[in-house]
Amino acid sequence: MKSSRNRASRGFEAEGLVVFGGTASTHLAQKICSYLNVPLGRATIGTYPDGETLVKVEEDVRGKDCFVVQSTSPPVNSNLMQLLIFMDSLRRASAKRITAVIPYYGYARQDRKSEGRMPITAKLVANMLTSSGADRVLAMNLHADQIQGFFDIPVDHLTAAPVLARHFQREGVENAVLVSPDVGNIKFGNDFSERLGSELAVVHKRRLTGDSTKAITIIGNVEGRDVMMFDDMITTAGTVCEAAKLVRSHGARKVFVAAAHGVFAGPAVERLLGAELSEIVVTDTIEACPEIRAQLKNLTVLSVADLIGEAIKRIHEHQSVSALFRLAEDGE
Amino acid sequence: MKSSRNRASRGFEAEGLVVFGGTASTHLAQKICSYLNVPLGRATIGTYPDGETLVKVEEDVRGKDCFVVQSTSPPVNSNLMQLLIFMDSLRRASAKRITAVIPYYGYARQDRKSEGRMPITAKLVANMLTSSGADRVLAMNLHADQIQGFFDIPVDHLTAAPVLARHFQREGVENAVLVSPDVGNIKFGNDFSERLGSELAVVHKRRLTGDSTKAITIIGNVEGRDVMMFDDMITTAGTVCEAAKLVRSHGARKVFVAAAHGVFAGPAVERLLGAELSEIVVTDTIEACPEIRAQLKNLTVLSVADLIGEAIKRIHEHQSVSALFRLAEDGE
Amino acid sequence: MKSSRNRASRGFEAEGLVVFGGTASTHLAQKICSYLNVPLGRATIGTYPDGETLVKVEEDVRGKDCFVVQSTSPPVNSNLMQLLIFMDSLRRASAKRITAVIPYYGYARQDRKSEGRMPITAKLVANMLTSSGADRVLAMNLHADQIQGFFDIPVDHLTAAPVLARHFQREGVENAVLVSPDVGNIKFGNDFSERLGSELAVVHKRRLTGDSTKAITIIGNVEGRDVMMFDDMITTAGTVCEAAKLVRSHGARKVFVAAAHGVFAGPAVERLLGAELSEIVVTDTIEACPEIRAQLKNLTVLSVADLIGEAIKRIHEHQSVSALFRLAEDGE
Amino acid sequence: MKSSRNRASRGFEAEGLVVFGGTASTHLAQKICSYLNVPLGRATIGTYPDGETLVKVEEDVRGKDCFVVQSTSPPVNSNLMQLLIFMDSLRRASAKRITAVIPYYGYARQDRKSEGRMPITAKLVANMLTSSGADRVLAMNLHADQIQGFFDIPVDHLTAAPVLARHFQREGVENAVLVSPDVGNIKFGNDFSERLGSELAVVHKRRLTGDSTKAITIIGNVEGRDVMMFDDMITTAGTVCEAAKLVRSHGARKVFVAAAHGVFAGPAVERLLGAELSEIVVTDTIEACPEIRAQLKNLTVLSVADLIGEAIKRIHEHQSVSALFRLAEDGE
Amino acid sequence: MKSSRNRASRGFEAEGLVVFGGTASTHLAQKICSYLNVPLGRATIGTYPDGETLVKVEEDVRGKDCFVVQSTSPPVNSNLMQLLIFMDSLRRASAKRITAVIPYYGYARQDRKSEGRMPITAKLVANMLTSSGADRVLAMNLHADQIQGFFDIPVDHLTAAPVLARHFQREGVENAVLVSPDVGNIKFGNDFSERLGSELAVVHKRRLTGDSTKAITIIGNVEGRDVMMFDDMITTAGTVCEAAKLVRSHGARKVFVAAAHGVFAGPAVERLLGAELSEIVVTDTIEACPEIRAQLKNLTVLSVADLIGEAIKRIHEHQSVSALFRLAEDGE
Amino acid sequence: MKSSRNRASRGFEAEGLVVFGGTASTHLAQKICSYLNVPLGRATIGTYPDGETLVKVEEDVRGKDCFVVQSTSPPVNSNLMQLLIFMDSLRRASAKRITAVIPYYGYARQDRKSEGRMPITAKLVANMLTSSGADRVLAMNLHADQIQGFFDIPVDHLTAAPVLARHFQREGVENAVLVSPDVGNIKFGNDFSERLGSELAVVHKRRLTGDSTKAITIIGNVEGRDVMMFDDMITTAGTVCEAAKLVRSHGARKVFVAAAHGVFAGPAVERLLGAELSEIVVTDTIEACPEIRAQLKNLTVLSVADLIGEAIKRIHEHQSVSALFRLAEDGE
Repeated sequence: MKSSRNRASRGFEAEGLVVFGGTASTHLAQKICSYLNVPLGRATIGTYPDGETLVKVEEDVRGKDCFVVQSTSPPVNSNLMQLLIFMDSLRRASAKRITAVIPYYGYARQDRKSEGRMPITAKLVANMLTSSGADRVLAMNLHADQIQGFFDIPVDHLTAAPVLARHFQREGVENAVLVSPDVGNIKFGNDFSERLGSELAVVHKRRLTGDSTKAITIIGNVEGRDVMMFDDMITTAGTVCEAAKLVRSHGARKVFVAAAHGVFAGPAVERLLGAELSEIVVTDTIEACPEIRAQLKNLTVLSVADLIGEAIKRIHEHQSVSALFRLAEDGE
Repeated sequence: MKSSRNRASRGFEAEGLVVFGGTASTHLAQKICSYLNVPLGRATIGTYPDGETLVKVEEDVRGKDCFVVQSTSPPVNSNLMQLLIFMDSLRRASAKRITAVIPYYGYARQDRKSEGRMPITAKLVANMLTSSGADRVLAMNLHADQIQGFFDIPVDHLTAAPVLARHFQREGVENAVLVSPDVGNIKFGNDFSERLGSELAVVHKRRLTGDSTKAITIIGNVEGRDVMMFDDMITTAGTVCEAAKLVRSHGARKVFVAAAHGVFAGPAVERLLGAELSEIVVTDTIEACPEIRAQLKNLTVLSVADLIGEAIKRIHEHQSVSALFRLAEDGE
Repeated sequence: MKSSRNRASRGFEAEGLVVFGGTASTHLAQKICSYLNVPLGRATIGTYPDGETLVKVEEDVRGKDCFVVQSTSPPVNSNLMQLLIFMDSLRRASAKRITAVIPYYGYARQDRKSEGRMPITAKLVANMLTSSGADRVLAMNLHADQIQGFFDIPVDHLTAAPVLARHFQREGVENAVLVSPDVGNIKFGNDFSERLGSELAVVHKRRLTGDSTKAITIIGNVEGRDVMMFDDMITTAGTVCEAAKLVRSHGARKVFVAAAHGVFAGPAVERLLGAELSEIVVTDTIEACPEIRAQLKNLTVLSVADLIGEAIKRIHEHQSVSALFRLAEDGE
Repeated sequence: MKSSRNRASRGFEAEGLVVFGGTASTHLAQKICSYLNVPLGRATIGTYPDGETLVKVEEDVRGKDCFVVQSTSPPVNSNLMQLLIFMDSLRRASAKRITAVIPYYGYARQDRKSEGRMPITAKLVANMLTSSGADRVLAMNLHADQIQGFFDIPVDHLTAAPVLARHFQREGVENAVLVSPDVGNIKFGNDFSERLGSELAVVHKRRLTGDSTKAITIIGNVEGRDVMMFDDMITTAGTVCEAAKLVRSHGARKVFVAAAHGVFAGPAVERLLGAELSEIVVTDTIEACPEIRAQLKNLTVLSVADLIGEAIKRIHEHQSVSALFRLAEDGE
Repeated sequence: MKSSRNRASRGFEAEGLVVFGGTASTHLAQKICSYLNVPLGRATIGTYPDGETLVKVEEDVRGKDCFVVQSTSPPVNSNLMQLLIFMDSLRRASAKRITAVIPYYGYARQDRKSEGRMPITAKLVANMLTSSGADRVLAMNLHADQIQGFFDIPVDHLTAAPVLARHFQREGVENAVLVSPDVGNIKFGNDFSERLGSELAVVHKRRLTGDSTKAITIIGNVEGRDVMMFDDMITTAGTVCEAAKLVRSHGARKVFVAAAHGVFAGPAVERLLGAELSEIVVTDTIEACPEIRAQLKNLTVLSVADLIGEAIKRIHEHQSVSALFRLAEDGE
Repeated sequence: MKSSRNRASRGFEAEGLVVFGGTASTHLAQKICSYLNVPLGRATIGTYPDGETLVKVEEDVRGKDCFVVQSTSPPVNSNLMQLLIFMDSLRRASAKRITAVIPYYGYARQDRKSEGRMPITAKLVANMLTSSGADRVLAMNLHADQIQGFFDIPVDHLTAAPVLARHFQREGVENAVLVSPDVGNIKFGNDFSERLGSELAVVHKRRLTGDSTKAITIIGNVEGRDVMMFDDMITTAGTVCEAAKLVRSHGARKVFVAAAHGVFAGPAVERLLGAELSEIVVTDTIEACPEIRAQLKNLTVLSVADLIGEAIKRIHEHQSVSALFRLAEDGE
């Protein structure tokens, strides 16, 4: 992307492109701005003594094409609210167009009523984004593709898959068996199977007849093979660590784990430390805190800044974003 | 449900419950009315010489609680438009509440942008239903649960799974291996695996390295076992028939196929005739035309009329619909 | 229009104008593109085996000014749905502006509640067009002018009247008596009376006192005169053929019939063949199928492609469309 | 209607029916309340010293079924604004349902763009009514039936035609010739022709060839006959008085004029005084001021209070309003 | 502002800026156009004989950036309706952007429910402005700042304070005591106190214990001092004249009164004539009629045309409007 | 209220009234339920390991009249989000009506653009409440009355003023001087002045001429008097403590401070401890944490549970809520 980048970014600022970063994605926004060769948009973001969020845009945005980069990662409610307030400010300040750039879309798993009397919070969030002023959304690895349909405004949906796949191709582990740690997540793993040409195996939990307990089994063969497990996100790492233990007990050799989003909540770090993984790979859609990086020595964090930066450039210049996927797959 | 049904249905008509049936679901609507012990709502539905759809509600619906039963099965565009016009009539005729009862929700597979510049027609349909006057929706086995989130109005989502599972339990085939004919459809099969306590196997298509062709393999063991394949719908029957052939070549004995919705489009009948299946089971969410019934001797059509009828009763009486699932699972 | 056309069309493509054609208006869209000197926008439009409509826009439309030409002529429901899906695709693909170009607007006669508990489908369609992404509408000879008010987005409303009138002026029949075949349609005929300076007569059906049958009479004088009958559309041709018979019985000589839209539904062709008309004139807002053209030897189809093309040019360039009417009337 | 009225109205007040009257329809609202046997809803309506409209609802309307009777007759802007503010008060005061009862709907003639860059004020008014809190509308003799379609909320559309027709039947003039004073208004006259079984004639203005002036002619025969002219409204009375003169010059005897709405604006009274009309009949949808009544000795004002009152009763009790038309036609 | 004005206005017309004036602000609109060096947009605004408002835009506005200057001053309902119809015309005529410029926003004092069952007319008006097509609003000295929040579209809110303050600075009266004539209005006065560095006093009405009458007192010292009283508007002048009398009775010397908006309703002129004021200063947000100017010899009317003109220029050119305040405060 | 309460609450549960409490208002909701004699609605409210809020309504709410009591006090973003998710659950679970009961409305001070490029977060919150399913709002002591106008749904606005005033009347301090600690807050204090018949004084900060510092002065007389200071909320207590110091330096005796909402953020406790106040009085719209109660020995917390409970009862029974104010003022 190098050469086109330099050519493309010439004069973005003059053209009215402004990229802002919320506090959840400060570093990522900074890197995106470096890719685009524009200064980060100036804004005061803070908290009043009573905890209310304060946003004040510090530069003129009238008639500008504004992008706000903000993951709704933990603390999700504050980060979401900050994004909404940010967009309300921009709308009232007469921005020409507002794109919510949401590398990690919190509440994405609450995307259906799994039981009666449950909310569909992912839709509630979509409505809030639209009604607070977003003209379009740029998201990455939504938990379900259908979340795009929660919006009536355009959604550009990127995937970190090429970034993750390229990493393993470079490390030369692409011939490992691909294990889906859960029947529900098989889709994401299957994409990698397609991409890397790997065999697939699935971990399956089954209710035993006449019993409320479940037996965990593996469908497919992992004996003597290296194993890769892909998921859209690592949250408490329970499923993936249980699966890692299972494949190891079935004779697997090295176990690699990769995900687009590294949430690392609750007992995640402890579990991952105990899971004897060769490598844990995530991207910077969520900014990994220094403590986690220090504890997880086998953690690799890849950056999606260039990918998002290029998408912003294309959106701003009215170029195809889907073409970006093909570029990405061809190794650019 | 018998006893409660008699008690509950006493006077539904007097209470202001009216159930209408569109032309795609005439028989089903009639059966639902029998369950509820109410006469089918009167309406003239037809087509003008130039093909425009004509709907005229023939009874007073002011202040009534109206349900319109209409699958958006083929011809999908006309059936959908008929449903929308029906609801516009009811709204303008001052119905108190309008529930769109959609046993089969057409366009459900167009629920995400699989590529650039594609529509999300399932969302477009959701918007159309809402804006034409639906206050709520009652649907069955939506292709993806997330479609519920395409609406901001209440959606009651029923599943034909207990009806199908009970059928196989009665026939005594529940100990067969459950095969998911495609990685993408594994969720629906997994539900049955949970419900029936069966083992699971998955058919997997994999791109061979350095080649554009794909190899089809089966993950898990089917040798000498009976096989059940469940899917939410049978459309062209391509995937399921290919999977049937594969499991048979891996030594499977009898093969059963079941789905909530029997669309039977294009080459479906021909394929199913050639697939040597022991039984094909669907429900009457889509009315199977006599020709198909005549050709497919091994086709069993179960009715969901009582299930939908009970749900309508509960919605009308402000009772829990999710409780209906528990009743259903406990064999009523 | 010739000279301005060449000047204006230079570089339309580069400027971001894209014209797409739906399957109901393929030829018309092609002619419009010829007028504008732009290539027809590429899109895949088709039908899945189960009859669901498929639209995939095949060229980048980000930031483009898009026009979709699609009459909602029979089969109206499929053609309408195709138009809506087309616009949903364009909206989600980030088109800058979407204009629905609807040469024939189906369901236009369902524009009011003629009885209780009837829909107002023409409004339902207007709502659907708006909510699926249309930013503006370009229509021709709407059955009632008030349909413009069903929209809150801008509607440019063209009339084929100058095209039809010019035809008769060229043929030298403009001094004929203008007969309105029905009291309800008198408005359209009156416009021509104004335009051509002709005398007017009206066919009137009257309930006889104390009787449920009606007598058909003619108010005004047609004896020994040529007669022209204008209507916005010819559907089943019942009214117009009955009127033709009546005027002939009152001594009229040649009878000419003209309409903007030639729907030709149900018994239309048969009736028209039996009506001894000198000429039937319609435009290509609806594409006349070859069978109809073959059967109706006295059918003349005029093209409105240049008219629509010029309107698109003016909309794209922010020029007055109402000025177009004056140009048209002055013979350009 | 007498007997049913007494039965039906028992306890309307207790049931939560409240009828308010705006200042444009104080007398009519009072008569409607008499028909319904309920007290007129209490409210303070006034004007601040700077001309701003003041509305304060003076009784509790929480959970009540509220009707606001207000014609948007001259001064139209103030009467309209008063109606909107009234409904805003009721909405914020938690009324259960609000029906705007608009006997005369001002701005109804601005229902289409007759030229470029014109508003469609009748639609603007419809949007304002809906967004200020109206749940439904009850209107009379809208200038065009299509105005119903400007709303997505239910509109009950009454006609004063039976009230006017019955008047002439009682006077024994129903065998007169029915003359439409203008081609554009022929629809309303035609309804009466149907209702009274009369012959029809039409006044037609025609542009002379090669000239900008117009000739006024009459199509049909009025010689030696009594003439009735019906229109939806009498505004400046120009067209109707010109037509009266014309029919008289063609040998007509007595000339009767009738309309649902008597606006009597500008030179109307003067013109009507000079037109030698046998009788002018209007209804009280607009309250005729005493001066006009004093000047126009031949003016008859019929009341639509019972008709509207009965419609309100039926809406409140969820009974058919369209059935009311049949009752009306059968002479009740 | 002089120099920048000349530079900036070069070619505004060519750039697509059009400024229209409603009948309530004809002179102000003309002055604004002079500031911007553009011709006033052409439109026919009138009244039909029945009092309905007529607006016809007389120049092409497709793709233009349109501003409609119209105070909703008395007669408020007609002026408001005219503004709404104007915007509906512009929207339907395909204007690119519509800004409602409302120097005086009528109904602003009805901005909250002061008692039960009252409307919030200022919000109703905001909804009407938005739904009739306004893309943005430019207002001056709204009665409460919170009215900005009644809109979700951008509102630029100007203040006449610098214009008024500069006037008094020039006259050398800025060291007077600033008296707030009412506790409720203290905010506006306090702004001037900040701006002019004056001392503050407040007039306070207090209910006496056990009594329904109120005592009027002054908090703070005015003895031997000149007094300035500022308010956002002078309506009936009751409060301000009562306060003037009070301060005089407490020994004040000269009394000056200033307001952004001079409504002068009801007994205002009479009261002001009797109040022995040294000077009354208002701006031309409301056009003072010649009678008032003739009667109130001590009335000074300052113009806000340059202020509004500069704001329009900045909005059109996507420059900061808030920067305008700083320029204003620095004496430009 | 005792007797009416017992009578009124009989059978509320059977009638379909359900009151839920969010985690910010658990105790208050419990007390309200005690007043209403209904059990608190059952729901699971929690937090997932990654911090996402979880709400699951645990009882059937179909057709029920639901109230959710939740202050959006600190942590404001989580409490607000919880309320929104709660309402989304209720809406999707087919509740008949949802009332958001918000004793303390966070972000209320962000109710206008105080500078350029600022959000109006109080309006954003209002939009979010409406779009997540609230049919109505019950709030207390909104920072500005105009916030009611941010909604188009009914808002019942209660005031804690009678509760606070009665407290001081009982303690016999009502004859003290009422001091407004800031010019901007004078409105709230003035209400008390009206209510208690007290004299008023105002603390005023003034910019000194030619200087950027401000002088703080007191307008009115406090020497030798007891002082009461009322505000809608105590946040950081800076203004009120500074004012307390000032009045003491001007010779005031005892100083009492009262507010509807006790936020006590940042340095509030420390400041209040140093301010030598005789008593600090707040209500339980915000639940005071035990630490604050332990530290502030002179803190009195009054309950508004009966007031809110009575309002809920009246809303549920369609009785006047504004009548409640009169009852309250008359000492009930």
